[in-house]
Amino acid sequence: MPKVNVILSPGFWDEKIAENKQIVVIDIFRATSTICAALHYGATSVLPVIDASNTMLYAKKNYITAGEREGKTLPGFDFGNSPVLIQDPKILGKKIALTTTNGTKCLSLAKNAAKSKIFSGSFLNIAATARILSKNYDDVILFCSGWKNEFNLEDTLYAGALVNLLSKDFEIESDAAFMAANLYQNAAKIGLEKFITNSSHLKRLSKYDAEGDIKLCLSKDICHKVVVLENDELVLLKE
Amino acid sequence: MPKVNVILSPGFWDEKIAENKQIVVIDIFRATSTICAALHYGATSVLPVIDASNTMLYAKKNYITAGEREGKTLPGFDFGNSPVLIQDPKILGKKIALTTTNGTKCLSLAKNAAKSKIFSGSFLNIAATARILSKNYDDVILFCSGWKNEFNLEDTLYAGALVNLLSKDFEIESDAAFMAANLYQNAAKIGLEKFITNSSHLKRLSKYDAEGDIKLCLSKDICHKVVVLENDELVLLKE
Repeated sequence: MPKVNVILSPGFWDEKIAENKQIVVIDIFRATSTICAALHYGATSVLPVIDASNTMLYAKKNYITAGEREGKTLPGFDFGNSPVLIQDPKILGKKIALTTTNGTKCLSLAKNAAKSKIFSGSFLNIAATARILSKNYDDVILFCSGWKNEFNLEDTLYAGALVNLLSKDFEIESDAAFMAANLYQNAAKIGLEKFITNSSHLKRLSKYDAEGDIKLCLSKDICHKVVVLENDELVLLKE
Repeated sequence: MPKVNVILSPGFWDEKIAENKQIVVIDIFRATSTICAALHYGATSVLPVIDASNTMLYAKKNYITAGEREGKTLPGFDFGNSPVLIQDPKILGKKIALTTTNGTKCLSLAKNAAKSKIFSGSFLNIAATARILSKNYDDVILFCSGWKNEFNLEDTLYAGALVNLLSKDFEIESDAAFMAANLYQNAAKIGLEKFITNSSHLKRLSKYDAEGDIKLCLSKDICHKVVVLENDELVLLKE
């Protein structure tokens, strides 16, 4: 039986244990939610870029630029990191270059794990993601971006939701995966949005009037396709 | 209002944020439980030592030696890391030098945080520890030893129990502290021992026939004094 593990933040990342795995990178508020929303709306691909200044170089190559630092849209960029605002006719049929504080960094870390399949995870397409992970039936690592190497609530809750969906077909590998699954079960009883009111990142985001974003980031299964990394760009998986 | 934070493993440790705080070092299975049990039974002090070979030097200075690696008693040592077996007449009135895989390392890390008060935390004296932390009324850091830099269930549960006890007088500072408190609330409903059956460390320990140890490590308030670091050695606080 394959195993499912949860990495609670980049501080726990270990390239070697990630080899030959299915890796789901998670940054619920908001990078991986924005990526799913953009592809679902009609962008062709999203290229994660670590460096903000490098991202601007892609504007010359006809990419749409999107990005934030400390939650704020970067100056000169077409979009920030809002899954609501990215759903704009400008992105239809376009490639997007995206840079964010936490999520794009973790996508780059995951990319270096040899022989692994990389997915971008969000509540927006959680059922589809669970379905593909089960179908492939290889060990799974759920990689939470956290906030600047810290543990965060929203990424752990998504990881926990996915552990619960996978628990019939996968062995729960670690205390972190067990905790995440348990945390999600409790949060689901209370209601995800209510439970997450205490998230430090949510408090941070609410400064930027991001209420619509938060609602969307916690909405399940709006998209029924999986987001996968192919040739360094994130795309919807053709099945 | 002072704050309470939880550091989930040594991987999250930051000496600077630990300055000027009350730090509780936590290694439930078993170092900090063994330390409390030994002092409560009648040892004078416990010296945490990182290096196993250095620990043996203290035998010449009339210390009792105790220690493990990978859960096993170190060869030539008087005791392993069992809170049950350490309660032996041999330790009465004696100083103990203790080395363990995770806990003693974290005690040493905490010691380097400037101007901080260091406590050793266990369920065996949790009420007394909460009482002193509240009385001092300075910011609190609950520092989980984990297992080789990984997150673990038992240390997080203890941290969560303590966050709950402190929550009236302290502000919950982070998502990690909020999660730990929530995890403990759920575990308490099911029963700590039953809940923790899934702990990876418990599975590891059960190889060493440590059932009695596990029961003791999860027993609350056998000791009504606090374990504090004074001049590099852990002692019961005189009040």
